[in-house]
Amino acid sequence: MTKKETPIIILNYKTYAESTGKNAVTLSQYVQEASDETGVNMAIAPQAVDLYPIIEAVDIPVYSQHMDNITPGGHTGSTLPEALKETGITGTLINHSEQRLTLADIDAIVEKSKQLNLTSVLCTNNVKTSAAAASFNPDYIAIEPPELIGTGIPVSKASPEVVEKTVEEIHKINNNIPVLCGAGISTGEDMKAALELGAEGVLLASGIIKADDQKQALIDLVSLI
Amino acid sequence: MTKKETPIIILNYKTYAESTGKNAVTLSQYVQEASDETGVNMAIAPQAVDLYPIIEAVDIPVYSQHMDNITPGGHTGSTLPEALKETGITGTLINHSEQRLTLADIDAIVEKSKQLNLTSVLCTNNVKTSAAAASFNPDYIAIEPPELIGTGIPVSKASPEVVEKTVEEIHKINNNIPVLCGAGISTGEDMKAALELGAEGVLLASGIIKADDQKQALIDLVSLI
Amino acid sequence: MTKKETPIIILNYKTYAESTGKNAVTLSQYVQEASDETGVNMAIAPQAVDLYPIIEAVDIPVYSQHMDNITPGGHTGSTLPEALKETGITGTLINHSEQRLTLADIDAIVEKSKQLNLTSVLCTNNVKTSAAAASFNPDYIAIEPPELIGTGIPVSKASPEVVEKTVEEIHKINNNIPVLCGAGISTGEDMKAALELGAEGVLLASGIIKADDQKQALIDLVSLI
Amino acid sequence: MTKKETPIIILNYKTYAESTGKNAVTLSQYVQEASDETGVNMAIAPQAVDLYPIIEAVDIPVYSQHMDNITPGGHTGSTLPEALKETGITGTLINHSEQRLTLADIDAIVEKSKQLNLTSVLCTNNVKTSAAAASFNPDYIAIEPPELIGTGIPVSKASPEVVEKTVEEIHKINNNIPVLCGAGISTGEDMKAALELGAEGVLLASGIIKADDQKQALIDLVSLI
Repeated sequence: MTKKETPIIILNYKTYAESTGKNAVTLSQYVQEASDETGVNMAIAPQAVDLYPIIEAVDIPVYSQHMDNITPGGHTGSTLPEALKETGITGTLINHSEQRLTLADIDAIVEKSKQLNLTSVLCTNNVKTSAAAASFNPDYIAIEPPELIGTGIPVSKASPEVVEKTVEEIHKINNNIPVLCGAGISTGEDMKAALELGAEGVLLASGIIKADDQKQALIDLVSLI
Repeated sequence: MTKKETPIIILNYKTYAESTGKNAVTLSQYVQEASDETGVNMAIAPQAVDLYPIIEAVDIPVYSQHMDNITPGGHTGSTLPEALKETGITGTLINHSEQRLTLADIDAIVEKSKQLNLTSVLCTNNVKTSAAAASFNPDYIAIEPPELIGTGIPVSKASPEVVEKTVEEIHKINNNIPVLCGAGISTGEDMKAALELGAEGVLLASGIIKADDQKQALIDLVSLI
Repeated sequence: MTKKETPIIILNYKTYAESTGKNAVTLSQYVQEASDETGVNMAIAPQAVDLYPIIEAVDIPVYSQHMDNITPGGHTGSTLPEALKETGITGTLINHSEQRLTLADIDAIVEKSKQLNLTSVLCTNNVKTSAAAASFNPDYIAIEPPELIGTGIPVSKASPEVVEKTVEEIHKINNNIPVLCGAGISTGEDMKAALELGAEGVLLASGIIKADDQKQALIDLVSLI
Repeated sequence: MTKKETPIIILNYKTYAESTGKNAVTLSQYVQEASDETGVNMAIAPQAVDLYPIIEAVDIPVYSQHMDNITPGGHTGSTLPEALKETGITGTLINHSEQRLTLADIDAIVEKSKQLNLTSVLCTNNVKTSAAAASFNPDYIAIEPPELIGTGIPVSKASPEVVEKTVEEIHKINNNIPVLCGAGISTGEDMKAALELGAEGVLLASGIIKADDQKQALIDLVSLI
C-alpha cells in the first residue's frame, strides 16, 4: 500500500439499520460514487456478515470492524481473521471504543493483520493511549474521544488540542504512522479542521449514515479540502 | 416450522480451516448431498461472515452460531440479529459453550429469535442448566457437557444418564421442547445411542469436519437410525 | 438457617462512598441498631475488601456482593469463594444486574454456595429469568427490573404485576423459594406494597445509603409492616 | 517513593489455598521475617478480601492484585480503587495476565493510582506490550511471558533476550521505569539471572507459595544477589 492509497475517509457502518444488509450494499454504491466524483479516497467498514455481498458489489477499500484474536479451530460465534481475509477485505479496524481489546490482544491482532497483509487501523481514545498504540506500529491510528461519539460535536472543534497533541505524541514514537480522527465529524468544516490539525483523514459513522442524502453528505464532507 | 422439519443433525462449523470460506461452501454442498441421499434432515451453522455465499449455494437449513443482544444502532464489531435474519438463515445457536451468555441475554435472544421467526437452539452444559433453559421455551435445547467437546468421547456413551436425565427434566418444565445432544459424537453408534436415550438429534463439529471424507462421515453417522 | 432467620431486608452497599471503608463500618452499626430497635431482620452486602472489619464490628448477617466461579489456584484479582467463606459471611448475592453471570456460572456458584453452607441470593431481572433461576434451587431469588434500579421509582408500584407474576412462576417450579424484590425501594409504603405482592423481603441500596439519616431511613422502611 | 524503597520482590498471592485467609496472614509474617533477615525489600499482593487483616499483622509493602476502573457509585461485586486505598495498601498490580485489561482501562487505572498516591506495577506479556506500557509512565513494568507462568521454567533462562530487550525498549520510551520480570522464577539462580539481564526485581507466585518451607524459599531466592 502506498501513501497515495491513504483512505482519507473511513465510514464505519456499525449496526445501523441504514447500513445493514441490502441497505449496506446500496450505501456502499453511494460511497463509491461519491469517491469517484470527488476523487477522494473513501473506505467502508461494514458488519462481518455483510462483507461478501458488498465486496462483490463495489470496488472501494472495505475494512472489517473487528477481528478476534483466535486461530482456526474450535471457536463458536467468533470472527476469524483468516475468514475475513478470504472475503477480500483491505484491512480492519482494531480496538474501536465499542469493541475494546486488551493490550495483549491488540498486539496480537496488529501482528496478525501484518501477516495477512491487511491494513490495520488501531482506534484509541486519548493522547496517552495513542502514544501506546504507536508502539505496535499499525498502519493507521484513529483517535476518537468516546464522549463525543455520536454527538454531532466534532472532535476537531471540541478538542482540537487532543488531535494536535495525539499527532505529536504518535510521531515521537513513530513518524510514519498517519493519524485519523473521529467522533462527531459530519460536515465539510469538521473535515477541514481535522486535516488542519494534522490528521490525514477521518473515521466517521452516524453523521453520514443517518443523513437524508448519504451520498450528498459525503460530497459535502470533502467539499472544503 | 413443523416437527417434520426437525434438524436431526446440526453441524457446527466453528472456525475450523476446513469449514471457513470456500471450504465452507464445499462442505455445505457435501452436507446437502448427504442429506439428499439419506433423507435425514441436516442443518449447518457456519461463521457469520460466510452465511451469504453458503445460503446462495445450498438449500438446507442454515443457522448462525451466535447473535448479540443488541438492536440496530451504534455497535461496532457486533453481530446484529436483524443482519443475520436478512441473510436468509433458518435459526441460530444460542449460548454455545464457546460463546456463553448471561441469563438476561439468553432470555432476550430467545425472545428476539421468536420475533424474527428464527428457530432457537439453546445450548446447555448439564441437567440443571437444561432445566433452567426450558423456562425460556426455545425451539430446541442442545446439551453438551463441555469436558467432552472435541474429545471424540461421545456423551451418549460417557454420560448416558446425563442425556436421559436432561430429557426428563426439560420435559417436566415443557414437554414440547425436543432435545439435541452433543460433544464427542462422530459415529453411527454414537448417533444411535443418542436417539435411544431420548434425544431427537445431535449437534456436532470436529468429528465430521476433520474427517478425511466429510460426506461419507455424515452418511455413516446416520447409517444405524 | 430456619425460615425465621429470613433476612427481610438486604442492604447492598455497592461501591458508594457512603458505604466504603470506615463509612461502611459505621453504616453497619446503624443497620444493627435499626434491626435491634425494630426487631426486623436486616442483612448487609458490603464490598469484599471491607468484609473483615465489618464482620468484626457487628453481629448481623453479612453477604458478599459476588463470588467468582473459581477454585483455589492461579487466579489474580478474582474473588475466591473459600476466601469469602473464611471471613465469616452468611451468604452471597449472585448475578446482580451490575455483575451478570453466564448460565453455567450461576449453576456452579449456587452449587458452591451450598457446599460452603452459604445462603444464596440469586438476582434476576424479569419473570422468565426468575423461573429459570428457580431450577437452581437457591435460598432466595431477588427480582430487580434493571430499568428501575437507582431511580427511586419502586418496582412494587411501577410494576406490581412483575412481582406477583414472579412469585407465581417461581413457586410453580419450587414452592419453597422465598422471593425478594428490589429496584427503587426506599419508603415504608414501598416495602409494605412489596410484601403485599408476595415478596418476603427487599433488596435495596441507594434509597437508604444516600439518605441523610441512614438509620432513620431503615426504621421508616419497616414502619408499616 | 525513593528508589531505595524499590520492592525487589513482589509475591503475588493469587488465590492459592496456601495464601488465603489465615494462611495468608501467616505467609505474610514469613515474608516480613525473610525481608528483615536478608535486608532485601519484599512486598506482597494478597486478595482484596484479605487486605485488612494482613495490613494489620505485618509491616511490609502490600499491593492489591487488581482494581477496577470505576468511581464510587452503583457497582456491585467490583473492586473500588478508593476502597483499596483505605486499607493502607502501598500500590497495585495492573493488567496481570490472569486479569487482562483494555488499553483504555490501563490508562485510566495507572492515572487513578497516581491520584491516590499508589505505586503502579503494570504487567505485560512481551517486548512490544512493554514498550506500549511505558507510554503510561507507571512506577514499574513487570514482564511475564504467560506461557511460562506456573511452569517452574524461569523467564530469565528460557527467554533471556526477552528480558534484555524489554528493558531496552522500555528505556527508549522512559529511562526511569524500573523493570521487574516474572514467570517461572523460584530459585536464587533465577533471581540472579534476572538482575543480570537488567531487571530490578521479580514478580513471583507459586514457586514460593507452594514451597514446603516458604520462608526458606524466600531466603534462598535472594541468596545470590
